[in-house]
Amino acid sequence: MESLTNCDEEEQPSSGMTNSWSKQEAFRGQMPKCAGGFVLVHAGAGYHSESKAKEYKHVCKRACQRAVDQLRAGALAVEAVTAALVELEDSPFTNAGMGSNLNLSGEIECDASIMDGKSLHFGAVGAISGIKNPALVANCLLAEAQKGKLSAGRIPPCFLVGRGARDWAVSHGIPSCPSEKMATKFSLSAYKRNKRKMELAEKMDAGQNQTKKRRQSSENENGSGCLDTVGAVVVDSEGNVAAAVSSGGLAMKHPGRVGQAAHYGCGCWAENACNMNSYSTAVSTSGCGEHLVRTMLARECSAAMQSEDAHQALLEAMQNKFISSPFLATEDRVLGGVIVLRCCRCVEAQASPDIQGAMVEFLWSHTTESMCVGYMSAQDSKAKQVPSTPVPTEMHQVCESINIVIHIISTSPLGL
Amino acid sequence: MESLTNCDEEEQPSSGMTNSWSKQEAFRGQMPKCAGGFVLVHAGAGYHSESKAKEYKHVCKRACQRAVDQLRAGALAVEAVTAALVELEDSPFTNAGMGSNLNLSGEIECDASIMDGKSLHFGAVGAISGIKNPALVANCLLAEAQKGKLSAGRIPPCFLVGRGARDWAVSHGIPSCPSEKMATKFSLSAYKRNKRKMELAEKMDAGQNQTKKRRQSSENENGSGCLDTVGAVVVDSEGNVAAAVSSGGLAMKHPGRVGQAAHYGCGCWAENACNMNSYSTAVSTSGCGEHLVRTMLARECSAAMQSEDAHQALLEAMQNKFISSPFLATEDRVLGGVIVLRCCRCVEAQASPDIQGAMVEFLWSHTTESMCVGYMSAQDSKAKQVPSTPVPTEMHQVCESINIVIHIISTSPLGL
Repeated sequence: MESLTNCDEEEQPSSGMTNSWSKQEAFRGQMPKCAGGFVLVHAGAGYHSESKAKEYKHVCKRACQRAVDQLRAGALAVEAVTAALVELEDSPFTNAGMGSNLNLSGEIECDASIMDGKSLHFGAVGAISGIKNPALVANCLLAEAQKGKLSAGRIPPCFLVGRGARDWAVSHGIPSCPSEKMATKFSLSAYKRNKRKMELAEKMDAGQNQTKKRRQSSENENGSGCLDTVGAVVVDSEGNVAAAVSSGGLAMKHPGRVGQAAHYGCGCWAENACNMNSYSTAVSTSGCGEHLVRTMLARECSAAMQSEDAHQALLEAMQNKFISSPFLATEDRVLGGVIVLRCCRCVEAQASPDIQGAMVEFLWSHTTESMCVGYMSAQDSKAKQVPSTPVPTEMHQVCESINIVIHIISTSPLGL
Repeated sequence: MESLTNCDEEEQPSSGMTNSWSKQEAFRGQMPKCAGGFVLVHAGAGYHSESKAKEYKHVCKRACQRAVDQLRAGALAVEAVTAALVELEDSPFTNAGMGSNLNLSGEIECDASIMDGKSLHFGAVGAISGIKNPALVANCLLAEAQKGKLSAGRIPPCFLVGRGARDWAVSHGIPSCPSEKMATKFSLSAYKRNKRKMELAEKMDAGQNQTKKRRQSSENENGSGCLDTVGAVVVDSEGNVAAAVSSGGLAMKHPGRVGQAAHYGCGCWAENACNMNSYSTAVSTSGCGEHLVRTMLARECSAAMQSEDAHQALLEAMQNKFISSPFLATEDRVLGGVIVLRCCRCVEAQASPDIQGAMVEFLWSHTTESMCVGYMSAQDSKAKQVPSTPVPTEMHQVCESINIVIHIISTSPLGL
């Protein structure tokens, strides 16, 4: 089982878990108790090269630690998830914040969003330049919106883009960062390589008619490392959930292009339990932005999590709402991944009347070659990390799930 | 009944139809046959002054005519809906394209999106400046995405914002327009008035603490005319549906703010019938962008339309998914409106085996003071227009519904 009270060793889940219940069932018998919340992060669904694997592993661990530091200090889920995102963005190896993919013009434009399951507020920025941590801007937008209307009854924005987003961020105390400092040696060399590849592809297509050109192009594979959006989901000590996502977007995207990381319902979703929903759920997605937007994958997975069997529900959601979605009927390959957290109160006897148990289930699934995931509870001394799980060639997707129990404070305003 | 074969006279529906079935039931007995498609447009849910009412009436009629001209020429729904939007945007009286609300910096930044129920593709632009018809850019993005991938396997964008969106539009043959030409005498004077109002409100708030300031501000009413986003829904002669929306956004919004008109699932939604859905549905929304985004009102209303009783389903969707939505629990007043079209094949005997009947139901509902709606079938000589329907003070919303039958070509690729 995944003992989060004693988890110094890395867990290396076996691949090919798609239809297997053995692992999940095994956990059910022996549930450890961990107080103070839980975090699950990802460093993208895509292709993770060997050379980057070690770095991804480290950054996932650091991101978990940052969120747990916040949780231990009593922060709400929305603050902890932001802290995890900042760490993921600061890594020059992830496609978010520092080291993001460059667009067609050789510039960095980032998308990020955050959703608070307690207030159901959402904050997002799209195509923002010159800000090292777009997740901080999304969090600040969310916090400002919760304060109520602006002067003269104006409704505060939940989504800002481009230059306006940067100006708003700076005016709210978030420091700007020269764009050239956000590019890394890796992102610059990837840009040059992608540009050459593009020019070559266009040269090869020249002379062919437009339809044929488009069809041929669609058979080319995407550049490696172009899908590694980052994200996190958190439940805090009161049982509130939050989700966040941040991305530099597709390599060689058109300037101004906004992907799923800034789209409501597509990049992340979080909803505390309420009268209608038994489970609190938080979801963060990664992959090809346009595919994730058109299928609203984050919201779909969140809705699916109200089913009793979380593992089966996620498998079905990924199959029916993503891989076989009528919205992607013309796509030759559907690329994406999700991390999912759900929790509900559980009835076992507690040490204190003020403390209750919360069953936390966390899952991840992807159709891409690999996905890098890390997780940690507030009682752990160290994060656990699942390195890039390869999708076996005969399978369409990988789906993993783990159950734990954490303690939550029963004075939570939740309807858990 | 609403005879669309002989509709030179304007229809003035009585207000207070929220819970009344009399009108809808009355239509069911006598259904006229109209070939070639149908369009329903709106010039916004908000407050429509007497002085603007006549202009709105005219522009709704012209927009219907433009769409019908396209339908008669054999255009698909997505082209007809774009034609309607261009006409609505070109009016200096609507808050879309020419004459849009100015933002805090005195600039015009527009949002628009379009969805094709046949391909389920979506195109959107956000915070775009210097383009007279943002709907044309959204339509062009949708059309380009349908052609497949770009060179080197790059996925074409479905959503572009800001300067990048404008550059993309110009490179795709959509002419730019100097921003100063898009402001009108009316929008400039509204900007000056709003600015004074804002300065006065901020002066009054000075000296009070931040929390109190925010709460007081929230009690102020929004500036008049700030919610009149425009939109249209169309079914073509083959039974395909499409929906579109365009907006200059809230008056005095922060630069870079993107509202529901560019948000997937929030501003518009269109889905042809399929194995899972008996009805083809198309929805376009108007109102306070942040409210419409956070409730995903277009998609929610579309999903509700699969219920048998369209009128009741829309009433319930507006009540449960908007007015009483947990996502807007802290809002003092929820402002929005929708136009909805749904259709399905009907079984009555046809004149030709190639032609089948399609039952079209169109509805609109709003919580705002008024909403301006126009509609026309391809067999009509003139559009019908419903002037601003006031919401009776004792009611939360107005909901109107009308049924007609049109003819569709049975060789349609639809699963209708």
